[in-house]
Formats: sequence, structure tokens, C-alpha cells
Amino acid sequence: MSREPLKGRGFYRVWREVGTRWGDNDAYGHVNNVVYYSWFDTAVNAWLIEQGLLDIQAGDPIGLVVETGCRYARPLAYPQPVDVGLSVERLGKSSVRYRLGVFAKSEQEAAAEGHFVHVYVGRDSRRPVELPSEWRRRFEQIRS
Amino acid sequence: MSREPLKGRGFYRVWREVGTRWGDNDAYGHVNNVVYYSWFDTAVNAWLIEQGLLDIQAGDPIGLVVETGCRYARPLAYPQPVDVGLSVERLGKSSVRYRLGVFAKSEQEAAAEGHFVHVYVGRDSRRPVELPSEWRRRFEQIRS
Amino acid sequence: MSREPLKGRGFYRVWREVGTRWGDNDAYGHVNNVVYYSWFDTAVNAWLIEQGLLDIQAGDPIGLVVETGCRYARPLAYPQPVDVGLSVERLGKSSVRYRLGVFAKSEQEAAAEGHFVHVYVGRDSRRPVELPSEWRRRFEQIRS
Amino acid sequence: MSREPLKGRGFYRVWREVGTRWGDNDAYGHVNNVVYYSWFDTAVNAWLIEQGLLDIQAGDPIGLVVETGCRYARPLAYPQPVDVGLSVERLGKSSVRYRLGVFAKSEQEAAAEGHFVHVYVGRDSRRPVELPSEWRRRFEQIRS
Repeated sequence: MSREPLKGRGFYRVWREVGTRWGDNDAYGHVNNVVYYSWFDTAVNAWLIEQGLLDIQAGDPIGLVVETGCRYARPLAYPQPVDVGLSVERLGKSSVRYRLGVFAKSEQEAAAEGHFVHVYVGRDSRRPVELPSEWRRRFEQIRS
Repeated sequence: MSREPLKGRGFYRVWREVGTRWGDNDAYGHVNNVVYYSWFDTAVNAWLIEQGLLDIQAGDPIGLVVETGCRYARPLAYPQPVDVGLSVERLGKSSVRYRLGVFAKSEQEAAAEGHFVHVYVGRDSRRPVELPSEWRRRFEQIRS
Repeated sequence: MSREPLKGRGFYRVWREVGTRWGDNDAYGHVNNVVYYSWFDTAVNAWLIEQGLLDIQAGDPIGLVVETGCRYARPLAYPQPVDVGLSVERLGKSSVRYRLGVFAKSEQEAAAEGHFVHVYVGRDSRRPVELPSEWRRRFEQIRS
Repeated sequence: MSREPLKGRGFYRVWREVGTRWGDNDAYGHVNNVVYYSWFDTAVNAWLIEQGLLDIQAGDPIGLVVETGCRYARPLAYPQPVDVGLSVERLGKSSVRYRLGVFAKSEQEAAAEGHFVHVYVGRDSRRPVELPSEWRRRFEQIRS
């Protein structure tokens, strides 16, 4: 397991509050490790949609997930809401690697930190496409 | 299927905004019917916790779910947030029947309406207990 | 809450084993009430697909859920697998009401019992269509 | 993203079939990336329970997840069932790093491959404990 310390709030460029749900707590009483990934999915795609880039139903390209990962440092539990920070970490020809930080409200130290790699593909072909220039421009704006 | 019209916003006494998640949308592009129940669980228990009644880890009694149901009238989709309305519909000796309404933001007509029956049981015995008077008082306050 | 006893195994015409997942157990150590609905969805649609009726990606009609409900009688917990029984309870012009029973392995008494109402709609129009005769024939075969 | 090829079936020492659920498919019609992690949780803990090591309700130690990751190579979709392979990759004083492979039925090439790091802690203290010798012995048996 990587020993690198988790990044603080200052690293992230976009923020999204996400709520917890009763069923997020598992048998040990804390948010299950799986749930953090649903927050990553939610934060990345919501940002893409709000920027006018992604249209789930009809847009082209769409993003397919090829790699994800997460390190967990401090437990969280429903009903607390959490802050998810988002930054672009690496920008490829057709892929983007995002870094995500999960923070309890008013906490400076991350509860968890993850990465999420999207490859952007043609809706029908499902083959990688070069990132449209408008997409690239927006990704550059949230690069850390 | 019941033909009774869904109740409007005026029926509900407590409100909670819940976020949608990417994975809430199913293969047909709308929030899956199952997810509404995770909102019911979330809204009821959060209210109980915020009232100082329920303590998930250590409190006594706890609420066990014995019956739930939902009618779906209009689709919802991530990333839209939704409003969940909550009222107590029936108050028994040890059980409470809640009514829940799910509304798109700024919509007056419900997207879905459900019920949720909790029986309050001893944490260890898991047998029904009479509702403590403070619980009963709070339930009366959100009765419709 | 309805006092009618839950139906036994003999009522159901089609069976499907479903596995439980770690995260299905909630903070009280039993399968969360929400999860049962994911089993209902899974059992109904898998049967439709295996009968050659439903094609999620391209078929027409598709089934939209308009009402669901469940009564819970006995707890279940991961890692136990469960048996889900399925029967058609009512057959309308464009809708079907299924009854579903959830049973622990080798138990005769249901752990939970639910219903699930599908309206079959045109894939594009999303408006109710008359059930195709082949669909109707298959539904009749699993009627209880 | 790591370019190392995914390991084949031969690498894994323990197998578990897991079912897919309707709601596992997301808006693009394939199993959502988050769901794979619910399979990892399910496979690791079920093996621990079946070996008589872990008791969710009362046992000591319990396993807390400190790191997970997954690479996705080929899509999967409900209703197909999948095979999850499991091996111990690294054995520490109080932690275990598992490798997990997800395979479509009768496919030799992995659909996805992940890792999952458990730290075993005292149930009450939630502090790392040295792995009991019986646990260590079982872990050694599924080491790859």
C-alpha cells in the first residue's frame, strides 16, 4: 500500500457535496468502501454534464471507465454529508485521469483519496476518440 | 394498482433533499425503482437521528422495517436532485407508518409516493417495545 | 400493515437463486429492506430475457415499473444465498402484476413477500402497448 | 494507467460465482464500474467466513479495507453471471493484499482485475492486530 500522504483540500479545483444514505453504512457501521466509487462516478459525470460536455442520453463522445482506485484513511458514516474534491491529474489524447478527495465537512484531512480514469469513446463505435478541443479546454481549467 | 392520485407537496410535514448518483440510472436511463427505497430509508432515519431519537450505534430502541411500498408516476434521472417529503400516517403502540413523497425540484406533482412501516424494537431483544413518550410526541408533530 | 400470512413455496411457479453481497447487510447486520427490490427486478427481468421476450438493448416493448411493495417477516444476512419465487398474479391489457417470495434455503416459510407491477411500453414512445400474444402466452404459463 | 496485461484464470486459487442484478447495468447498458468492488468485498469476506476465520457479528479480529483498485478491460452485463478469482498477493503482519480477477463464464481473459487490502483490527479497539496463526496458515494456502 502506498505510503504517500493524502492530499489536502488545497489540491482540488472543483467541489461537490454528496449525501450519504442509510444503506451506505455496512455491518461495521461505517460507509462501505464500495460507496466511495459511486461518489467518484457521480462527481466526475456531474461536472462533465454541468460544463455542457457530456449528455448521457444523446451526446458523443461518452466516457468509459478503465481504471479506478481508492485509499481509505478515516471512516465516514451516514447521515453525515461529505465533500468530494475533483481535479484533472493527467490529460491524454483520449483519456483523462482524475484525482478525487473525500472529506468530512470542515475537516482539512482527507477521509479517502482516489483516482478515476475515463477514456472518451464514440457513442456507437465505443472506440477511443481524440478529445474535442472544448473538452480539452475545460479539462485544462481544473488541472492540478 | 391503486388509482388514488398521488398526494401533493402540501401533505408532507418534513422535507429532505437527496442527491442522485450516476449508478441510480438504470439501462433505460432513469432512476431505477429500487433507489427510491434507499431515499425512504435515508429520509426516515435521518429525521429520527436529527430529532435525537435514534442512535444507530448505541441507541435503544431501533427501527426495523416490516413493510414498504411505492407507486411511480414520473421518471427521474441523475444528476437531478430530488425533494423527499415525510409525514407520519399512522401511529401504533410500537409501530409507525410513514408516507413519503418524491418530487422533482420545483414540481408540484409527485414523481413517486411510498409508505414505510417501522416497528421499534429493543436493540438486543429485537422484540417490539412500546414507543417512548418522547418518540410519540415527535411523531405526533409530523402527523398528516 | 396487512395481516394476511405470507404465501409458501407452493404458490410460486418460477424460481431463481440470488446471491447476497457484503454491502447488502446494513448497520443492524441484516439484509437492508431496499435490497429485496433489487432481487425482484433481477428475477422478473431475467425470466423475461430467458423466455426470449425482453431484450434490454434493442427489444420492443420494454417494461417500466409503476408499483412495487414488500412485507418483511424474517431477517436474512450475507453470505446466505436466497431463493426468489415468481408468479404472475394479474394480467392486464398492457400490464402484469407479479408476486414474489423470498425464502432462505431449505426454509418453507417466506422471509419476505412482494409485488411488482410492470407496464409494457414502446421503447421509443414509452407509451403502454397491448401485450404481444407470445408474451401473453408465457405469462399465462406462470400464473398462480 | 498500468499497461501490464491482466492475469489469466491460472493465477487465482479460489473461485466464487457471483450473480449480476438488473440495477448493476448503468445508463450505457453495462455493469457499472462500482459494482465490481461489491464483488470483491463479497468474495473476500465469504472466503474468510467459509474458512471459519471471520464472524461478522461477533468475531475478532475484523477486516477493514484500506485500499482498493480495479482495471476494466471488457464490459459485462446483467443477466450474465461472473466468476471471481481470488488470491493472496502479499501477507503482512496485520494486513493482507488480495488480487481479484473477474471473468465472464468460459472466458479465459479477465474482464477486470483488482486488488483489495484488508487490515485486520480488534473489533473494539479498531487497531491493527497481529494475524492469528490460523488466519496466517489459511492465507498462505491461497497465496499466488
